[in-house]
Amino acid sequence: MSSRLLVTYQLRCTPAEAPARARALAIEQSVEMPPEAIADEALRARVLGRVEAIEPDPQDPALQRAILSLSADTVGDDPVQLLNMLFGNCALQPDVTLVDAQLPESLVEALPGPRFGPAGWRAAIGPSAEGRPLSCTALKPQGLPPDELAQLAYAFARAGIDVIKDDHGIADQAAAPFEKRVSAVQRAVERANREKAAGGDPALAGHRSLYAPHVSGGPERLERQLAMMRDEGVGAVLACPMLIGAGTFTGLLRGRAGVPVMAHPAFAGGRIAPALLLGRLFRLFGADATIFPNWGGRFAFSRGECLAIADAAREPLGRHLPALPVPAGGMRVERCREMLDAFGPDTMLLIGGDLLAAGPAMPARAAAFASALRAARDSGGARAKPASGDPGHPAAA
Amino acid sequence: MSSRLLVTYQLRCTPAEAPARARALAIEQSVEMPPEAIADEALRARVLGRVEAIEPDPQDPALQRAILSLSADTVGDDPVQLLNMLFGNCALQPDVTLVDAQLPESLVEALPGPRFGPAGWRAAIGPSAEGRPLSCTALKPQGLPPDELAQLAYAFARAGIDVIKDDHGIADQAAAPFEKRVSAVQRAVERANREKAAGGDPALAGHRSLYAPHVSGGPERLERQLAMMRDEGVGAVLACPMLIGAGTFTGLLRGRAGVPVMAHPAFAGGRIAPALLLGRLFRLFGADATIFPNWGGRFAFSRGECLAIADAAREPLGRHLPALPVPAGGMRVERCREMLDAFGPDTMLLIGGDLLAAGPAMPARAAAFASALRAARDSGGARAKPASGDPGHPAAA
Repeated sequence: MSSRLLVTYQLRCTPAEAPARARALAIEQSVEMPPEAIADEALRARVLGRVEAIEPDPQDPALQRAILSLSADTVGDDPVQLLNMLFGNCALQPDVTLVDAQLPESLVEALPGPRFGPAGWRAAIGPSAEGRPLSCTALKPQGLPPDELAQLAYAFARAGIDVIKDDHGIADQAAAPFEKRVSAVQRAVERANREKAAGGDPALAGHRSLYAPHVSGGPERLERQLAMMRDEGVGAVLACPMLIGAGTFTGLLRGRAGVPVMAHPAFAGGRIAPALLLGRLFRLFGADATIFPNWGGRFAFSRGECLAIADAAREPLGRHLPALPVPAGGMRVERCREMLDAFGPDTMLLIGGDLLAAGPAMPARAAAFASALRAARDSGGARAKPASGDPGHPAAA
Repeated sequence: MSSRLLVTYQLRCTPAEAPARARALAIEQSVEMPPEAIADEALRARVLGRVEAIEPDPQDPALQRAILSLSADTVGDDPVQLLNMLFGNCALQPDVTLVDAQLPESLVEALPGPRFGPAGWRAAIGPSAEGRPLSCTALKPQGLPPDELAQLAYAFARAGIDVIKDDHGIADQAAAPFEKRVSAVQRAVERANREKAAGGDPALAGHRSLYAPHVSGGPERLERQLAMMRDEGVGAVLACPMLIGAGTFTGLLRGRAGVPVMAHPAFAGGRIAPALLLGRLFRLFGADATIFPNWGGRFAFSRGECLAIADAAREPLGRHLPALPVPAGGMRVERCREMLDAFGPDTMLLIGGDLLAAGPAMPARAAAFASALRAARDSGGARAKPASGDPGHPAAA
């Protein structure tokens, strides 16, 4: 079993139909031809997907679950081919949902995982980030020119926000071309960081806000963007793995950005369980933090799905560092306490529109957000409540 | 209107809920923040998505359709950002399906489109391909070593199959590493082509079969694969845009492969109308041929959806060449006539497993497939029936 993936699919069919449907799926996701036409029996035994178990779906009697095993030989070591074998052709079969995948140790080891993890984020932000949840906000709306985005970033950084990311809709448009925008915003954040170091508020002494520009496009454009970021000394980066491609995310971002990487879930809306895709797989592909739409916002993920994403991002997984879960998607400062109680301190909270909607009071609201997260360390309250609900959970401790 | 995209979404809500849902979607897919918090009115007017129309879904009273307009400024000229604006965040909202997108002329012009198109495929195959539908088959199963894949390819090429592609599950695995496989298969196909030129069958004189290896991975691996293909003189290439990323597909495949490009639909199973994604968008991203699961096979696309894909791949679209539609997914030789009647001669038929299932009779069955398509030119029957059902349709004529 150790060299096979154990993949759980949900099938929309009756219990009587399930064995044939599961077998057809095992063929589709492996040899993709009639098995009886494969003359080499050893090859067929090795490469053909196997139906390991079929059971009724615990939630819905109209659904069945099939556990298939797929040979790790069919994947090799590549994120793109992993997604292909897990959900390539059956993505086009609407009766199939990908629920879970347990990867063999060899494959877990072959994938890069996070380079920085929670400790790397905190080290980049400075000593004031130790032992507490992190704050993140977004520069928007797209359409603002570089100097106005820079003004926003400056205000956020002065307020003590840890990570200031581009809205994922901001790419390389005429209103704020990548080079001009990144240069202007990075300089504004550096100025705010110098001012915090020099002055006034002891709570923010030594606090370094990080800017995470959104990189997007094909490989040539991405390489130009990464080179430019390095030249400017940018401290983090944001990308959408499902838009740029998992192989590009791993190869260029995890491999060569040299700074902590945030993954954004845009375009990740197929029939794949969020905990698997946004939690385990994005982490294995190299995300140091993974953004997901938290419950109670503009999106439909349930509380259970969100906690499962956080667990998958932080649970023990071979040699790999955890990724920070980043609940987002219409969150408000008033929900910080509740979110920290649910997710624990190894979390980055992302609040964007709610800060900007404050208008002239935005700096005060951003400061309230940042200070709520500092208070979470000081109180120690959030620390006692890991996401899994298991106080002995090693990754959340 | 000329600088805006007109995007049609299907919303699962009541007619009474539709205006608010559509407005929320217009915000989500543009500024992604409360519009009232955008101080600059001109920016808001330009960048904010607009609800242009709401109507009941023609098929299902539980669904509504909303037509939104999005500013072309938010897209720029990049395939990745186009997908982001069309379906980035709302991919995570299961009540939303992307039905259609009419792109402004400037954006249609900015995208590369096919480099070769149907005439390019036929020129590469030789004079015997003029005026007739093309045949395609697949090398499989994955797990076969390079020499056995090469033997299969040789037999297909001798039988007169036009395009011999890797199964999309074949990537760069240990059983048949890319370099060894591509070298062995390409040489086998070249040998068969030389033999056809030298000998016997006048129907195959001058017929050049093309090998289309499947390239997959991150940018570095893809660049190595493309360089190796060039060194070997490989005549076509296959990739999955939704797995490697649309920007990588456009930048590396359309931009630099130098041979006709086939797009495979693996992982393209989100809530996006197939005619839009596999037809219009893959074509605009640079596909010279687009594979899709035909009706009556192992997949769920309807006849109407398949004909709509073919129409989108071939209809007039700015300066762009058509892409060949490639119906596939469990097709059989006996269905050639029916498929050609439906899709017309500017089509590539892909039959894989049905040929391989013939076992020792595979070469004869492959020859029957190839000859059925040659007969379709000679009879002229298929030529009279373009996919759109409109005999005056310029692209299918």
